[in-house]
Amino acid sequence: MGIRIAVAGASGYAGGELLRLIDGHPHFELAVATGQSQAGARLGAVHPHLTTLADHVLAPTDPAALAEADLVFLALPHGESAAVAAQLPAQTKLVDLGADHRLVDADAWSGYYPGAHAGTWTYGLPELPGQRAKIAESTRTAATGCYAVATTLALAPLLAAGIASPDDVVVVAASGTSGAGKSPKANLLGSEVMGDLSPYKVGAHQHTPEIKQATGARTLSFTPVLAPMPRGILSTVTAVATGAADVRQVLLDAYAGEHFVRVLPEGLWPHTAATFGSNACHLQGTVDRDSGRLIVTSAIDNLGKGAAGQAVQCANLMLGLPETAGLTANGVAP
Amino acid sequence: MGIRIAVAGASGYAGGELLRLIDGHPHFELAVATGQSQAGARLGAVHPHLTTLADHVLAPTDPAALAEADLVFLALPHGESAAVAAQLPAQTKLVDLGADHRLVDADAWSGYYPGAHAGTWTYGLPELPGQRAKIAESTRTAATGCYAVATTLALAPLLAAGIASPDDVVVVAASGTSGAGKSPKANLLGSEVMGDLSPYKVGAHQHTPEIKQATGARTLSFTPVLAPMPRGILSTVTAVATGAADVRQVLLDAYAGEHFVRVLPEGLWPHTAATFGSNACHLQGTVDRDSGRLIVTSAIDNLGKGAAGQAVQCANLMLGLPETAGLTANGVAP
Amino acid sequence: MGIRIAVAGASGYAGGELLRLIDGHPHFELAVATGQSQAGARLGAVHPHLTTLADHVLAPTDPAALAEADLVFLALPHGESAAVAAQLPAQTKLVDLGADHRLVDADAWSGYYPGAHAGTWTYGLPELPGQRAKIAESTRTAATGCYAVATTLALAPLLAAGIASPDDVVVVAASGTSGAGKSPKANLLGSEVMGDLSPYKVGAHQHTPEIKQATGARTLSFTPVLAPMPRGILSTVTAVATGAADVRQVLLDAYAGEHFVRVLPEGLWPHTAATFGSNACHLQGTVDRDSGRLIVTSAIDNLGKGAAGQAVQCANLMLGLPETAGLTANGVAP
Amino acid sequence: MGIRIAVAGASGYAGGELLRLIDGHPHFELAVATGQSQAGARLGAVHPHLTTLADHVLAPTDPAALAEADLVFLALPHGESAAVAAQLPAQTKLVDLGADHRLVDADAWSGYYPGAHAGTWTYGLPELPGQRAKIAESTRTAATGCYAVATTLALAPLLAAGIASPDDVVVVAASGTSGAGKSPKANLLGSEVMGDLSPYKVGAHQHTPEIKQATGARTLSFTPVLAPMPRGILSTVTAVATGAADVRQVLLDAYAGEHFVRVLPEGLWPHTAATFGSNACHLQGTVDRDSGRLIVTSAIDNLGKGAAGQAVQCANLMLGLPETAGLTANGVAP
Repeated sequence: MGIRIAVAGASGYAGGELLRLIDGHPHFELAVATGQSQAGARLGAVHPHLTTLADHVLAPTDPAALAEADLVFLALPHGESAAVAAQLPAQTKLVDLGADHRLVDADAWSGYYPGAHAGTWTYGLPELPGQRAKIAESTRTAATGCYAVATTLALAPLLAAGIASPDDVVVVAASGTSGAGKSPKANLLGSEVMGDLSPYKVGAHQHTPEIKQATGARTLSFTPVLAPMPRGILSTVTAVATGAADVRQVLLDAYAGEHFVRVLPEGLWPHTAATFGSNACHLQGTVDRDSGRLIVTSAIDNLGKGAAGQAVQCANLMLGLPETAGLTANGVAP
Repeated sequence: MGIRIAVAGASGYAGGELLRLIDGHPHFELAVATGQSQAGARLGAVHPHLTTLADHVLAPTDPAALAEADLVFLALPHGESAAVAAQLPAQTKLVDLGADHRLVDADAWSGYYPGAHAGTWTYGLPELPGQRAKIAESTRTAATGCYAVATTLALAPLLAAGIASPDDVVVVAASGTSGAGKSPKANLLGSEVMGDLSPYKVGAHQHTPEIKQATGARTLSFTPVLAPMPRGILSTVTAVATGAADVRQVLLDAYAGEHFVRVLPEGLWPHTAATFGSNACHLQGTVDRDSGRLIVTSAIDNLGKGAAGQAVQCANLMLGLPETAGLTANGVAP
Repeated sequence: MGIRIAVAGASGYAGGELLRLIDGHPHFELAVATGQSQAGARLGAVHPHLTTLADHVLAPTDPAALAEADLVFLALPHGESAAVAAQLPAQTKLVDLGADHRLVDADAWSGYYPGAHAGTWTYGLPELPGQRAKIAESTRTAATGCYAVATTLALAPLLAAGIASPDDVVVVAASGTSGAGKSPKANLLGSEVMGDLSPYKVGAHQHTPEIKQATGARTLSFTPVLAPMPRGILSTVTAVATGAADVRQVLLDAYAGEHFVRVLPEGLWPHTAATFGSNACHLQGTVDRDSGRLIVTSAIDNLGKGAAGQAVQCANLMLGLPETAGLTANGVAP
Repeated sequence: MGIRIAVAGASGYAGGELLRLIDGHPHFELAVATGQSQAGARLGAVHPHLTTLADHVLAPTDPAALAEADLVFLALPHGESAAVAAQLPAQTKLVDLGADHRLVDADAWSGYYPGAHAGTWTYGLPELPGQRAKIAESTRTAATGCYAVATTLALAPLLAAGIASPDDVVVVAASGTSGAGKSPKANLLGSEVMGDLSPYKVGAHQHTPEIKQATGARTLSFTPVLAPMPRGILSTVTAVATGAADVRQVLLDAYAGEHFVRVLPEGLWPHTAATFGSNACHLQGTVDRDSGRLIVTSAIDNLGKGAAGQAVQCANLMLGLPETAGLTANGVAP
C-alpha cells in the first residue's frame, strides 16, 4: 500500500501533470482525483495521455473524499483553496498549487488579487536557504508560482551574495500556453498562439510581490510574455551590480548539491525544451558588456518545477520521503 | 549493480532517448555511450536535457568497449550495424534500432536500401502474435522502424482477423521532425518546418517492405509526410473490407492485455501528443461511410514506441526483466 | 470609386482574410463588414493584423446594409447563407463561402448536413473545365470547400484523363487549425494542438460528397487530420491506375496556363508553407512503386485558395475583372 | 518598363522576402537576383513559395550585372557589402540590409564586429525624426538591423520626449528563427527550436551599439532570445522614468501620421503574428506599477519591417516613389 494521495482540481493542466507524477511515483497511490465541472468523466477523455489511468473516474470535489487521503494536492482556481482546506482535518497534509497561501503580507495580496487574504502557508521552494527544513516540518505548504520559481532561482543567489542591488530588478519572462490554463478562450486558440509572441498583464502581474517576498528584491519590473509552445518558462533577470562579481560562481555556490538545479557550463545557455517534462531548472549568468548589469536566465517546465513537480518535491519532504522520489531532472527532448 | 548497457550512436535523437530511458530504468546501468563524430564531448553539451548525465563523456564507437556491456543498443546510421555487430561476442545481447537486420527477403532489402543485405534478426515488435516469445529467446533483435510500428499495429489485426484484404492497402503517415535525424540540413531548419506539411519519398519509402513483411499485406501504397512537431507519428491505414466487420472489436481482441497498446473508447481518436515521451500506441478504427474501406489510425511517439522505447521493451524481454520496466504508457502532455 | 463590397460574417478567420484581400484589391472598396455577435467592435480588436482597417466598426448582419454593396461575400456558419441571400436583391452578386449552395444532390446534402438543402449555385472552382465561364455569368456562386479545393485540383485531372479509376479513391488530408474556426473550444487550444496530429470525422466528413460531385469519383475514402499549424492543407490523393500513365504530364496538361496552380518540377513535392497567404495550389504526382496506385499531393492555404482567395477569384470573374486582381500566387515564407 | 532592381544575396531569407516584395511592387522590375553558392539554381527550388518567379535563375554576384540595375539591394553576409559596393557606379542606388554601413563610430564597430569599419551610410529608419528626408536624398542607405528596428521604434520617442533616462535601459527581445538565417546548423533544426526558448549572445549582441546610436541611449542591457516561430520580433523595452509621463501619448505623438507604425488602443498589446508578412510595427506602453519603469513593447516581422520591408521603404524614398508602394501594413494572420 502506498501513501494515499488526492488531487483536487485534477482536470486542469497542473492537475493532469500531478496525476502523471503520482502514477509514476514509487510511494504514492492515487486515492481520489476530483474535478468540479467534469466530475463523472473518465480520465481517458479528460487527459488522453494518461493511458494507465484511462478508466479512473473524476469525483466531485468533496472534502469528505479528500479527507481519506494522507496528502491532498490542491490544484484549484485562485481563491478556492482556503475554503476546501478549512474543511479538511488538521493532520491531512496539504500542498496548494494556487496562489492563495503564498504571500505573507496581506497588503501585497490585496494589491494583486481579488478577495480576502487567506493566510500564509510554508513557502514551497526547497532550494531557498533554510526552506527545505521548514517544508519538511509543515502540514500546509504553498507551492511557488511558475514565474516565481524561474525568477527566484535566478535572482535570489545574486541578492543573497550581495553582488546585486535589490533595487530596480528588471525581469522579462516568457511562458508556454499551458500556464494560461485549459479553459477555452479565443486568444489561446492554436490558430492565435502559433507563430505569436505577446506580452500581457504588463507592469501588473501578480507574481511580482511573490518574487519580491522570496528574493528580497525591493523594486521589480516584471513583464510576462506568452510564447508559442505548450510548456516552458524562460526568465531573463537583470539586476544592477554592486561591484565586480563572478555571477556564474555565485550560482554554482548557491546550488551546489541541488539535484534539480543545474548551472550550465560556460558558453551554454538554458533551453526550455531541455527541461520539458522534468523538475529541472537550468541556469546561466553573465555581466552585460555595455551596462554592467548582471544577467541570469533560467529555464523550467512551468508544469514541472513550475507547478506539479515542485508540489511533489514538497510533498516528498513533508512525507519524509527522498526528495527526488517520483521526479526526474531529465527533460524529454527533442 | 545494474545490468550493464551500452549505446552505440548515442549522439543522435534515438540515442538520446535511449540514454534517458536507461537512466530512469530500475535495472539498467549505463556502461558506455559512444558517438563517432562527437566522441570526447560531454552529454551536457550534446543532449542538454539529460541533466543527470551531463558530465558523462561520449566514447568512440570501439567494439572492445561495447563488449563489456551485457546488452548493446545499436543506434547507428543505416548500414553500419552489421560491421559493429560482427566484432562483438556472441553472448553480448544486441538490439539494433537501424534497418539493417529487419528484412527477411534480400530482394526486398535491395529494392529499398543501398549495400548488401546484412541478414535477419528477430523482429522486435512484441505485440505481434508469437513475437514476444521469440524476442525473449533472442540475443539479436531488430527493433521495428518507426512508421512500421505505427502502421503494423493498426493493420496487422485486420489482416489476421480476415476482415481486410491484403491487397491495395493505402497508408498515409505523418511524422515529427526528429524522425529525420539531427544532421543539419536546410530543409529541416525550424524556419522551414514550422507551419509546413510536405510529403517525401512518395511511393518509395523503405518501410514499405517492412510493413508488408510484418503484416502480410500484399500491395501497399505508403506515403510519408513531414509534420511541424518534434515527435510523433500518426498513421492512417485504410484497407478494403472483406465483409461486415466491427473494426474496433477486432482491435480490442488483438490487444487485450497489452500494456502499451490502447484502443480508445468509441468517439475518441488518437492524438500524437498523448503519446509524447511514452512507449504507448493509441488506436481507433471505423468503416468509411462512402467507400466501405476500413480505417484505423494509430499514434505513437516516433522516438518512444517507434524507436528507443520499443528497443528497451525488447531488451527487457531478452534480459528476462518485466517487459514494462523503465517504460511508461503515459505521455507527457500538453 | 471602387466596386462596393460587403462581407457578412467578417469576424471569423475566412472573413478576416476576405477583409485583408479586399483592402489590397485594386478595384474593391469595403462597403460594410458585418459580424453578428461582435457587431459594434472595431476591427483593430477583432483582427489586430488589419492595421489599415483598425478603426472600421463591425456592423450587424442587416440585409438592408448588405444590399448597398455590388457584391456580398457570405462567410457565415453553415446553414445561415440561404436566409440572408433570400433578403438580398437579385442583382446583388453573391459569393457564398459556406457549404449551403455547393451540392447539386439534395440527398447528398442530407447525408452529411443538418437542415434542408438550400439549393444549388454555380460551383466556384474556376480551374475545373468549363467552370470559369459559368462563374463569369453567374450572380450566385458557391465557393469550394477547403478540403475540396485541394483534393479536387489533385484528383480531377486523373479522372478526366481516364488514367485513374473513379472507384476506391483514397484521400488523407491534413489541415491547419484555422479551418476549425475561431470559436473557443478546449480541443483547439494552442496547448492541445501544438505538437499534435489527430484525425477527426473519420469516414464521415461532409466534403466527401462535394469532392465526388466535383471530380466524378464514385467511391471515396476521405480522412481529415488536424495539424499543428495555423494555415495550410496538404491533401494526399491516391487512385487505382487504369493503365500506364505519366501522372505529372497529365497534371501539366490540365493546368497549362493556370496562374494559381503550379505543377512542381520533378523531384519537388508540395509544401503548405509555400502557399501561406496566397491563392496558389502546388501539385506533384507519381506512381506508387509497390501498389501501382497513382499518388498526387496538393498544397494550398485553407484560408487562401481554400476560402477567401478562391472567393475573390470568383468575384473577379463575376465582376468582369482580371481574374488575378488583388490576389497573389506567391506565398509568405518562411 | 519598371525601375530595374537587383538583389545581391537573393538565396537567403531576407533575399527571398525582397524578391516577393519586388514582384508585387507596382513600380519595380526584377533585373537580376544573385546568389553566390546557388548561382544557376532556379528560384522555384530555392524559394518554393515564389510561384511567379519559379523559372527565374539565380546569377552569380557579378558587379557588372548588378550595375545594370537602377537600385541594388545588398542582402549579403556581414562584411561583404563594402567590397561589392566599391565596384558599383556612384549613381547606382544602394540599400544595404547588412550591418556594414550602419554605425558611425568605428570603435563601436570594432567592439562588436570582426574586420575593418566599412564607413557609414544614411541610416535607413524613416520614422526617426529628420531621417525620412535624409534617406530621400541618399544614394547609399544602410537599412536598420531587425532588433534595432523593433527596439528603436519603442525607445526613441521616450528619450526624445525626455520622459525616460538614457541610462540603464533594459531590453529583452525575442526573434523568430528566420533571423538566424538559412544556413543549416544543428541548433536551428526544427526538432531543436520547436517548443524551445533560449537566449544567445547574452550581454554582447551586436545590435547594442546600433540601438544606442539610433536612440541616444547611454547604457543598454540587451538580451536576445530565439523563439519557436519562423518570423517576428517582440521587443520589451524598459527605461527609468524621469517623472510622471503618459507613455502611450508620447508614442501617439511621435508616430502621428506614420502609415506603418501603429500605437494600439489602451488595453491591447502587440502580437508578432499580427505583423507577419507586413511592414508594420505595433506598439504599446505603460508604467510598471512596482518599479515605476516605463515599459514599451513592440512587434514587427523581422523579415518585413526588420529587413526587406524596411529596405523597400527606403528604396521608395530614394527613388521618389510613394513611401508605401509595394508594401502593406496588414499582416497575414492567423
